[in-house]
This record gives sequence, structure tokens and C-alpha cells, in this order.
Amino acid sequence: MVKKLELLYEGKAKKVYMTDEENVLWIEYKDSATAFNGEKKATIAGKGRLNNEITSLLFSKLHSAGIDNHFIQKISETEQLVKKVTIIPLEVVVRNYVAGSLAKRLGIAEGTSLEKPLIEFYYKNDELGDPLLLEDHIAILKLATSEQIAVLKEYALKVNEILTQYFQNCHVRLIDFKLEFGFDAEGKIVLADEISPDTCRLWDMETNEKFDKDVFRRDLGNLADAYEVILQRLGG
Amino acid sequence: MVKKLELLYEGKAKKVYMTDEENVLWIEYKDSATAFNGEKKATIAGKGRLNNEITSLLFSKLHSAGIDNHFIQKISETEQLVKKVTIIPLEVVVRNYVAGSLAKRLGIAEGTSLEKPLIEFYYKNDELGDPLLLEDHIAILKLATSEQIAVLKEYALKVNEILTQYFQNCHVRLIDFKLEFGFDAEGKIVLADEISPDTCRLWDMETNEKFDKDVFRRDLGNLADAYEVILQRLGG
Repeated sequence: MVKKLELLYEGKAKKVYMTDEENVLWIEYKDSATAFNGEKKATIAGKGRLNNEITSLLFSKLHSAGIDNHFIQKISETEQLVKKVTIIPLEVVVRNYVAGSLAKRLGIAEGTSLEKPLIEFYYKNDELGDPLLLEDHIAILKLATSEQIAVLKEYALKVNEILTQYFQNCHVRLIDFKLEFGFDAEGKIVLADEISPDTCRLWDMETNEKFDKDVFRRDLGNLADAYEVILQRLGG
Repeated sequence: MVKKLELLYEGKAKKVYMTDEENVLWIEYKDSATAFNGEKKATIAGKGRLNNEITSLLFSKLHSAGIDNHFIQKISETEQLVKKVTIIPLEVVVRNYVAGSLAKRLGIAEGTSLEKPLIEFYYKNDELGDPLLLEDHIAILKLATSEQIAVLKEYALKVNEILTQYFQNCHVRLIDFKLEFGFDAEGKIVLADEISPDTCRLWDMETNEKFDKDVFRRDLGNLADAYEVILQRLGG
């Protein structure tokens, strides 16, 4: 078993530790919820466990479906081991339905279905407010080459196909989600970060009840209860 | 001579009148300056005349250079006749240097030169705050087809080449500018709206002194004096 060493980085929802294995990181999911670039904050008992369980489940599922990713194994209710990668500072957002910032940007009602999945790139930069980027902006910032952008898009669409089907089997509609990618030790692009109700919009297939972070953002109820529904439906 | 008929539309900087010719509009440039989506306002004597003169001069120049546009003729210091077109609700922004909203979005210093001209599309929609759009957003909103977007980009790059050279001959650096296009009576895409220091960033080639609406936005001096410099340098 690997040993947890010093804290490398503490984010809004996770702590990342070094381990005694060079290319392995130790992730601890926290019970904190934040929204609106950190302006709204709360501690929600059980959230760390739920996101760790759900992310572990989804990354395992994606691995089985042929999507290279950083996940190694879950080691406790709130902890998991992952491959160390150099994160590309882009949030890759895939949308199947209009919601959230897209509804505001385009003036289109939430829940409107899109003819085909939409991919958007946002600059992972809290100071700048995570702005939407054109591919030409990504080139100016030298965040990724056009070949790398093509790889990210291909990955994102594949992940969308797999997850849409998987959630559909659980009577959950995958409205949109955010992915992050990184370069592994061999320089290969792999899926990283987390996939959880913090990073997806997940609506009940029939009632459109929300089981994702919008419950917290919009004060729609108990966040842990909502995430527990997702974990249960996924069979976790 | 055509006759001015009823007011069709009053915008922030112009009044548009019908005429007794079906496909001809009568434009009157106003002395009002606005910025930040109308939050900052002022009346600046001479501004209407300057923008009418400069726009007339630049659209004539572009016409000679083979760029189809709506301009017909200047009819007074503050008025011009143009072809009636159905405006495509997109602001086509061309940038040669980083400035304004791009500097803020990317966190890059104003004045940084771009390796190649950057084209951005913004949704002409005051209520939504004229948001940046991806080409996929334009498709979702059905504002233009991908073929039409390609035409707009080609036009924008040609206009940039012509204007960059023209301003350079007058010791002015064309930092960025905004174009609008419309469909004429035959359904052809033509350049429309105005091209003036209201819609361009224009810096002195040596000193980087600003001769554009940033003088008003940022309280850098007398706006009419700045616009007069541009008119003089253009030989107007």
C-alpha cells in the first residue's frame, strides 16, 4: 500500500497529497460546497463521501469502456488514489440540453434540448472568472495545440456517449458536465479530476428534479440527499 | 434627390429614417456617446459630424477596394444615405492587438500584438449584454449558417487588410474594430453599419495615444478632438 505524504494542494472540494510513489497522488474529498467562484460556501456532511464514491464508480465505468483516465482505486469512503498528471487549464464542458450559463448567454430556456452535443472550453483561472474561450483564444494563450484540442473534443464526445447511456439506464438525464484532462508521465492526454454531481447537471428523466450542485446554488433542498439519490441509482 | 420619411429606428448613436425609395435609408449621426451597454452617456458636440465623415470616407475607400457595402452617399455633415439591409445580429470583431475585453478575458496586457488577426462574434443583444459566441452558439441561435459565417470571416479579414494598410499610411495603428453585416434586397451579404472611432481602436503609430471611444470610456480627454485627429489624418 502506498503511503500518504505531504499536502500538495488544497482546492475548494479536494485535498491532494503526494505519496511515496512518484506518479501516484492521494485525493481526499472534502465536505465543503462552493459556488459562484467561491462566493457561496457551506459545509455539507457526507458530500465528500458521496463525490468520492460517485467519481470512483464513474471513472471505473469509463475505464472499462476504454477511456484512459487518472483513477487508480478508491481507498476509503472519502479517499482515492490517482495517477499524477499535469492538468491542462481548460474546463471542457459538454452540453446535451441548455442550462446554467448557456441559458443566460443565449437567452434560451433551461431544459431546451440541443440538436447535437455542444462542447465549450473555459479557461481554468479563478482570477479571470473562468471565461469562455474560443479555440483561437486557446492558441493565443498557448494552453493547447489544435491537435490537442481535437483530442479533447473526441474524448469529451466519447465520455458523453458512455455517460448519457449509463445515466439513462438509471432514469437520470445528463444535461451537461465538465471534464478536465492532463498529461500523464508519458505525455499522453488522460481524463482527470472528478465526475460527480458537483461537475454534472443530472435531472430525473421524468420529473426533471435536480440531483446536482444546482440544489446548492439555487437553495432547492438538501444537497447530500440529492447526491445520495444519484449514488443509489448508480447502484453504489 | 430622395425624400426623408418617418423615423424607423433610433439607436444609441444614429437615427434611421425611411425614404421614398424602398431600398434606401437615411441615416443621421447623433452627438451622443454611450459606453458599457448604455450605462455611461454624454452629448459631445461634433461627434455626429465626425463619425458621419469618417464612416463615409472609409466605406467609400472599401467600396473602391472591392468590398460590397451599404453606403450610397453622404448628404450632409451628419447624414448619409445607405442601402436598406436586414442586419445579421452579430458583431464581427477583428483584433490585431490585445485590448479591451480581450485583455480582460485572457489576462494579457493591452497592446500585445497577435500573431494573426483574431475574429470573434458577439451576439447583438443589449438585454443579454452582447455576449461572446462560439460558432456552435450561432448555429443553436440560428443567426447564420456555417457558410454565411465563412463569408463573414472572409469579408472581415479583407476589410482588416485594407483598413490596416490605410490607417498605417496615416500613422495610425488599427488595434481592433467591429463590423456588422446585413442581407441586401437580393439576399447578398454586404457590409453595413458604420466604421468610425466609435467602432475601432485607433492608436498613434509611435506614441500609442488613443484616438477612439476609449478616450470617452476611460476619461482620457476630449473625444471630439481625438476623432478630429483621425479625420484630419485620413485627409477628410
